[in-house]
Amino acid sequence: MKLRTMPAKGTRDILPNEMQLRNYVLNIIKETYNKRGFTQIQTPSIEDIDLLTNSNGGENLKMLFKILKRGEKLKDNLPVDALADLGLRFDLTLPLSRYYANNRNDLPSPFKAIQIGNVWRAERPQKGRYRQFMQCDVDIIGEASIVSEIELLTTVAEAITKLGFTNFTLKINDRRLLKDMVLSSDISEEIFTSVCITLDKVDKIGIEGVKKELQSKNISDENIEKLISKMDAPLESLKSDAAKEIKQIIDIVSKHYPIEFDATLVRGMGYYTGAIFEIQSDEFKGSLGGGGRYDTLLNKFQNDVVPAVGFSIGFERIVDLLMEKNININTKKKLAYIYCDDTFLEKAINLSRNEENDDKIVSVFTAKRNKLGKKINRLEKEGFEVIVVDNL
Amino acid sequence: MKLRTMPAKGTRDILPNEMQLRNYVLNIIKETYNKRGFTQIQTPSIEDIDLLTNSNGGENLKMLFKILKRGEKLKDNLPVDALADLGLRFDLTLPLSRYYANNRNDLPSPFKAIQIGNVWRAERPQKGRYRQFMQCDVDIIGEASIVSEIELLTTVAEAITKLGFTNFTLKINDRRLLKDMVLSSDISEEIFTSVCITLDKVDKIGIEGVKKELQSKNISDENIEKLISKMDAPLESLKSDAAKEIKQIIDIVSKHYPIEFDATLVRGMGYYTGAIFEIQSDEFKGSLGGGGRYDTLLNKFQNDVVPAVGFSIGFERIVDLLMEKNININTKKKLAYIYCDDTFLEKAINLSRNEENDDKIVSVFTAKRNKLGKKINRLEKEGFEVIVVDNL
Repeated sequence: MKLRTMPAKGTRDILPNEMQLRNYVLNIIKETYNKRGFTQIQTPSIEDIDLLTNSNGGENLKMLFKILKRGEKLKDNLPVDALADLGLRFDLTLPLSRYYANNRNDLPSPFKAIQIGNVWRAERPQKGRYRQFMQCDVDIIGEASIVSEIELLTTVAEAITKLGFTNFTLKINDRRLLKDMVLSSDISEEIFTSVCITLDKVDKIGIEGVKKELQSKNISDENIEKLISKMDAPLESLKSDAAKEIKQIIDIVSKHYPIEFDATLVRGMGYYTGAIFEIQSDEFKGSLGGGGRYDTLLNKFQNDVVPAVGFSIGFERIVDLLMEKNININTKKKLAYIYCDDTFLEKAINLSRNEENDDKIVSVFTAKRNKLGKKINRLEKEGFEVIVVDNL
Repeated sequence: MKLRTMPAKGTRDILPNEMQLRNYVLNIIKETYNKRGFTQIQTPSIEDIDLLTNSNGGENLKMLFKILKRGEKLKDNLPVDALADLGLRFDLTLPLSRYYANNRNDLPSPFKAIQIGNVWRAERPQKGRYRQFMQCDVDIIGEASIVSEIELLTTVAEAITKLGFTNFTLKINDRRLLKDMVLSSDISEEIFTSVCITLDKVDKIGIEGVKKELQSKNISDENIEKLISKMDAPLESLKSDAAKEIKQIIDIVSKHYPIEFDATLVRGMGYYTGAIFEIQSDEFKGSLGGGGRYDTLLNKFQNDVVPAVGFSIGFERIVDLLMEKNININTKKKLAYIYCDDTFLEKAINLSRNEENDDKIVSVFTAKRNKLGKKINRLEKEGFEVIVVDNL
């Protein structure tokens, strides 16, 4: 019996054309981030199960891929929740927090990190959603000032622009402003995070759906109406320190890229404490990336407060959109040396090795004399200029 | 209680300096392989457990990281061997074989593939051996001629040379020659693969250890002596087709890179069917990479015979050696704009955004006025040229 050739459920094989595009996108992102003083790091794909399950992972914890214990640790009749000692990471922010605590003595402060790597979530497979996907994060750790927000926003916008997206707007809000709105709508601070998660669903379930879900959280209709109306307030009407900071960020970033205050921006994660942002565009639904300030997350690992801001680019989204645009990134000349008679193998190899120009792709092929025409046709279709060595 | 900050047992965090070196090495390898007509692909890190356990994985199967079933499939009291439905890949060759069978209609023939990715093995942790490590493979699938061996050998040697290793020799042998030796020493063909695995251990257990292990496989002392003596035979004395091919490969490759026949070269994997090779050097013990022809492995997935040859570079080994050499790969100028007074934040950002030269790293920092000197010192130690914006 032959083995199954499909990749595991919810995962996929990446063909050469897409891989080339992925590398092109990664290179532009890395070069842009490097230029702005960010350096790349890497954490393992697997982490201790205790780290993963004691995190703020929320919904992601339901989608955890857990790794079975091995050897003597794996006994018969272990209860289901004692079977795993490791898990695959579901994001890059939790591993970064652990990494920073583990290595902070060897890292500059502030630390400007790039992380590019796969994460795994056992989601119900559906179009465009995979169980393994690439995340691409920049974070600034150890800096409380808004210079971090501004550097992240301008750097990510620079990368997005270089990737050919021009018609986008940076949207910004602040969790502290959202908290002011919730509290001044007489909603209890205890359910603030839960209210944020509901507000974040407006794109999916609409404003009526949001209202219904807030009702189910025992918020009175009156307070819900208060809250909704406050979300229309212009930034100029807000007087808090948070509002002042957001105004200053917008003022400086807008000199370089389009940026707008959006009181309805919430972001799903529970750990944000200050500014939150997203890249939106009319060209496509949804966002090209987002992030925010999370000044307390690193407290899980160390006693002192370490401020942090991060921005995650929607790498898979960007690749999908560029695949659709069918942009041409193949600029190298392709050259094929073909030989039929074995006595010309050495000559073909020598000719190919003499092509030292890095802007040329050079490959050697063999063909049976009676199939040479077919082979040449095939290679020309693949974009090769073909040279038959036997005839030289 | 604070969470543990160490990475999972046997895995490690990669610091910015090493990551920069890893990217440097990867770029040289990728550029060299690309230039020689290889294109990169990617398979998922997780594969179905049946695929992994029905492979020729040998010892690697004992080190498999298995992934626990999820949801309803995970019931209490499942027997230990029914708990997992997925596993982490332990090499890149098995996934490539599956990939080729799954996608061959969309791939050129021959298909020249680059694979770069992590693999996972639950090895006993020890110095320099990790449970997650990077593999870096090139393979040519669908070509039976020795043009494949020659292209792989010269391309890998080109990459190794560009990485600064000059004092190396390519070693080559052939599984068919080994088989001839085993059979003509009156050892049964049935135990050929098992004999190869023992012969491969000579570096670890010495010639006496090899003899002892062969005895334990019920081979007579006389036949063992015959076999050992045959392994000294010069290539010129061998007359088979395999010997002729190896001679031709050496003849052509030697015009470009040092290459030698080595009758004691065996390689550990069971699936090799023809030429096998390794990169060795006096500079270091062990090899910088190796590979060989595996013309039957793909038969596990499809009915027709698809010939294949692969070469895997010892990526982690190379990074370790280059880390020790402490080579300088930082050539970019680093520029830091510092401001103390918040009113200069905008000016600092504008100055940094005006630096559009991609050969310059530009970053913005803030410092309290009374700590400015300390901050400047720290940044200068990190290699930055520092400009204080407040003073401009």
